[in-house]
Amino acid sequence: MTTTEMTAAEMTAAEMTAAEMTTAEASDSMRNGVDTATLFATLDAVKQAPQAARFQFRAHNQWVSGTHNRTTIADYFGVGEERAHERTFVFDADHPAVLVGQDHGPTPAEFVLHALVACITSGLANIAAARRVKLTEVRSTVTGDIDLNGILGLNPGVRNGYEKITVRFTIKGDAPAEKLREIVAQSRARSAVYDVITSGVPVAIEVDTP
Amino acid sequence: MTTTEMTAAEMTAAEMTAAEMTTAEASDSMRNGVDTATLFATLDAVKQAPQAARFQFRAHNQWVSGTHNRTTIADYFGVGEERAHERTFVFDADHPAVLVGQDHGPTPAEFVLHALVACITSGLANIAAARRVKLTEVRSTVTGDIDLNGILGLNPGVRNGYEKITVRFTIKGDAPAEKLREIVAQSRARSAVYDVITSGVPVAIEVDTP
Repeated sequence: MTTTEMTAAEMTAAEMTAAEMTTAEASDSMRNGVDTATLFATLDAVKQAPQAARFQFRAHNQWVSGTHNRTTIADYFGVGEERAHERTFVFDADHPAVLVGQDHGPTPAEFVLHALVACITSGLANIAAARRVKLTEVRSTVTGDIDLNGILGLNPGVRNGYEKITVRFTIKGDAPAEKLREIVAQSRARSAVYDVITSGVPVAIEVDTP
Repeated sequence: MTTTEMTAAEMTAAEMTAAEMTTAEASDSMRNGVDTATLFATLDAVKQAPQAARFQFRAHNQWVSGTHNRTTIADYFGVGEERAHERTFVFDADHPAVLVGQDHGPTPAEFVLHALVACITSGLANIAAARRVKLTEVRSTVTGDIDLNGILGLNPGVRNGYEKITVRFTIKGDAPAEKLREIVAQSRARSAVYDVITSGVPVAIEVDTP
């Protein structure tokens, strides 16, 4: 199926125009736990006021001991104002003993894998809802292969990060396999974290030594 | 200070040769919660058997409802065998209400920020310990600027991911500011997650539709 053959109902929210979005029937607004009416209204609102989509996400980290440190996620900026999550989220990161840590949390590199599958999965539900597909199950396993000779500085030919990452999705719903695969493809095509991990982002680091 | 002016004690573990590492004094092995003797012994062991450094990290995700999903991190491969963390770590991700979610967890994009600061901070303690610097405080805030017109598909000129990420470290310890800054620079230079985020990684996605 090519894009031009899609019906309005099959188009993703991202592909819909504001006019098409507002024609979504309210009667079956909830699908996959997604309120599609709210989803389309949000897209419509952003289309009218694009600056509302400028967000700044943040995390605050404090070193605990050794490789153990703790991140707090609470505040962010979006839709024109400072905002706070419903609650403050706290995450510990560490290295396992085999990497000279105490295993108080996953390694930072494992959190990258979590972010990737979480992002694509979040998008899946929205896109399926927009395409009127009811999902019954989405599971995934993500693996990241890394040669620690890189970060250990023992081989200049080895990069510090993952060599490759592989995600395997199992997805079930009331649509043919082909359509379910298209939903996954579209979620990848609109995933913030997939973009960050595959294309890279400029990172500036500032250091204050009071 | 240039690299050639460094003393052995000031060299990072990553920069030390195996011979230099084993000369580290056991008497002051513990520093910053890092057992430097174990750190150096680990580096020495990997230098003798480079294949021990081949790791595969993993995460398992299950969709819950809407943008809410849950990741489990437990198993990994490293040092030649299948391994498990001391306990199974579970993390929820979601979107806040303003992004049509229910805020059961941070957004996946926020977990990327957490992974980045956690990685550089973990490295800091190791590198400072190797350089015989006692850290007293490390705090950081990381911000990621993102224009959601990208993932919403409303502006083809806007990328899906972060436009830029900025990390601000506050670091204190028993060394001059210049040396503390060098430790941060070295941790960035050997950070797996910094490399992933700035340089990108190939990601393969496979879909099973049983």
